[in-house]
Amino acid sequence: MLNLEQIKDLAVKSPTKIVLLVIDGVGGLPRPDTGKTELETARTPNLDSLASRGTCGMIDPVSPGITPGSAPGHLGVFGYDPLKYSVGRGILEVLGIDFDIDRKDVAARGNFCTITRDGLVTDRRAGRISTEKNSELCRVLSDIELSGVELHVIPVTEHRFALVFRGDKLSGEVSDSDPQQTGVAPKEMVALSPSAQKTAALANEFITRAKEALAEHHPANMVLLRGFSQYPDFPSMDDIYKLNAAAIAAYPMYRGLARLVGMTVLNTGAGIDDEFKTLSQNYADHDFFFIHVKKTDSAGEDGDFDAKVRVLEEVDSQIPQLTGLEPDVIVVSGDHSTPAVLKAHSWHPVPVILYSKWCRTDNVKEFSETACASGALGRFPAVELMPLAMANALKLAKYGA
Amino acid sequence: MLNLEQIKDLAVKSPTKIVLLVIDGVGGLPRPDTGKTELETARTPNLDSLASRGTCGMIDPVSPGITPGSAPGHLGVFGYDPLKYSVGRGILEVLGIDFDIDRKDVAARGNFCTITRDGLVTDRRAGRISTEKNSELCRVLSDIELSGVELHVIPVTEHRFALVFRGDKLSGEVSDSDPQQTGVAPKEMVALSPSAQKTAALANEFITRAKEALAEHHPANMVLLRGFSQYPDFPSMDDIYKLNAAAIAAYPMYRGLARLVGMTVLNTGAGIDDEFKTLSQNYADHDFFFIHVKKTDSAGEDGDFDAKVRVLEEVDSQIPQLTGLEPDVIVVSGDHSTPAVLKAHSWHPVPVILYSKWCRTDNVKEFSETACASGALGRFPAVELMPLAMANALKLAKYGA
Repeated sequence: MLNLEQIKDLAVKSPTKIVLLVIDGVGGLPRPDTGKTELETARTPNLDSLASRGTCGMIDPVSPGITPGSAPGHLGVFGYDPLKYSVGRGILEVLGIDFDIDRKDVAARGNFCTITRDGLVTDRRAGRISTEKNSELCRVLSDIELSGVELHVIPVTEHRFALVFRGDKLSGEVSDSDPQQTGVAPKEMVALSPSAQKTAALANEFITRAKEALAEHHPANMVLLRGFSQYPDFPSMDDIYKLNAAAIAAYPMYRGLARLVGMTVLNTGAGIDDEFKTLSQNYADHDFFFIHVKKTDSAGEDGDFDAKVRVLEEVDSQIPQLTGLEPDVIVVSGDHSTPAVLKAHSWHPVPVILYSKWCRTDNVKEFSETACASGALGRFPAVELMPLAMANALKLAKYGA
Repeated sequence: MLNLEQIKDLAVKSPTKIVLLVIDGVGGLPRPDTGKTELETARTPNLDSLASRGTCGMIDPVSPGITPGSAPGHLGVFGYDPLKYSVGRGILEVLGIDFDIDRKDVAARGNFCTITRDGLVTDRRAGRISTEKNSELCRVLSDIELSGVELHVIPVTEHRFALVFRGDKLSGEVSDSDPQQTGVAPKEMVALSPSAQKTAALANEFITRAKEALAEHHPANMVLLRGFSQYPDFPSMDDIYKLNAAAIAAYPMYRGLARLVGMTVLNTGAGIDDEFKTLSQNYADHDFFFIHVKKTDSAGEDGDFDAKVRVLEEVDSQIPQLTGLEPDVIVVSGDHSTPAVLKAHSWHPVPVILYSKWCRTDNVKEFSETACASGALGRFPAVELMPLAMANALKLAKYGA
């Protein structure tokens, strides 16, 4: 397919509007007793109607067989090849907690862990300490002072925290201290490029000080760091697609991912109905909207088939509010599958509806995995979705003469 | 899609088992009088049942429109991009005769040919001499002595033989002597890289001596050499996929191809039933099995539609023995199509069944070209099959956070 530079050459500004509804982890697997997936079980008359009027298919978020994390899953549907545009683990961690990251910062993911007197790791998660204990210990670590750099130690949940160095001439090219196994000592962090020597030295100094500060806090008597990274410099959706794009997402991680590609993040309430209300209220001001529904994924990860069905039905009930706005293009899909029977993200392709006045309707009458698998869009990489949406919004000029 | 290094980063060892059944040349074309392909003609209740329980699609062994040889056909289904991982013709020739090739050896494919007194080639195949005559002449050529190198001249069939140089500092970077046309002289072989000068000199000396030795053996009074090559250094399936892979193949070529990717080659009888028995007997010892059925391809190449149908039915009768072992993942496909009406390998995509507990069953109820073309897997490159099999065996970790 065309790369983003080529897409950029074809993209034209126009008054048409695109709404991309990402139902996180929407794809599922059949429950053995009924033989039906979550989507096939849910009563979704509005999504089915949209599928009937649109054209359908299945997307592979990254490539067949590959289970995507949230970042590659979303970058794909935003039109950014997830094999080419990657987000470091440290950055992802701070995106997930709404930390106001700066382009010069370096972020790492931290784990509180347990070490023996000899310095060998016995538990990489410190017995999954409570989030409260985590907050307390992050305050202890925040008192560490390193010369020439501002330090942020931000609690996440259980044993996880984010570490941010703020200062000049920092680099994310630093190796992990996390040995990814027990029975060995944490690894010394080294610079993976000459320009990262300052950062590697700071990281090692931080670890030495953290060990002293945490000595009396068994089981959380040490920290492990990994995924040093800087905010990636992705071209914006405005730059590529000439879209004034807005994101409506109740969860920090997805607001962060939207910000990565230059979307304006709208304030919204936490409920699904709040998100659709936010869409209506801001509909006049943007020509592209990404709406993110999280709870399908959460229910899938919890293995709660029925809860996922209920969330799908709740999403369906909001569809008339969406279609009532009469966007020129509506895309409904997900960033990956999260089958409740697997209790995890999975590699399965994700059903997609593409609706527009010009979409060339197919025979699919239902928004489900089985129905969409026979849709006219076929099975295709998620990264091709944005060019299709743009085309259907008549926002892509002819390629070649 | 991800490259093998990226797949390697995601692959995890687990107790689940994968069986890959390759029915050589399985895809076909309809016989004009019935309108049905070989697969559609054959009674294959067991494969149909597997298709009903699995998810189906069509694979392109190399890419659409490309007719693959055996090596690219197999490398694709083993997950090695056949456009990136290639096997020299000389090496392929010795793989086909079970010759114990060494990594330092250089192999070439040889043809006995006919030349005039002036040295011009009049028949590149020496009138397709008998295999017996071939063996006799290979013994003559084996008496040639070249300094510093051990020589093996191994008959194949008719006019074809394999030439192997064994010694130090050899290289496969040598041009062909075969001019690929008649009326001209064989070409002098030249080193295509500086390190191949010794090998090119040896090859030219061999040709000079062979001409003398064969002078009285018209029509086979000369030889042509092509495809100089060394054993390729592919990453092993163990290295990439963390699989302890075993191959069950009655024909030398396919054992050789399996060895190229590091599979353990199991001893097996020549019959299809023998191969499935070998699977049962060794099932406990490996977590990946490649079973190769040759006779479908042979029947296709012979243009014997009915024979191909019978072989397919024979394969079908063995499927219960396979499913009875309850592998976590079963993949049934082929390395390419060999339609009896074409009497040759063809470019047509190949039907595939992917069965696992987590495969997300589609509506396909039959293992045939037409039925699989509407399967949920859609049409995809063969090289994506292994990541799918690995995912279904829960052997691939999440990509990205």
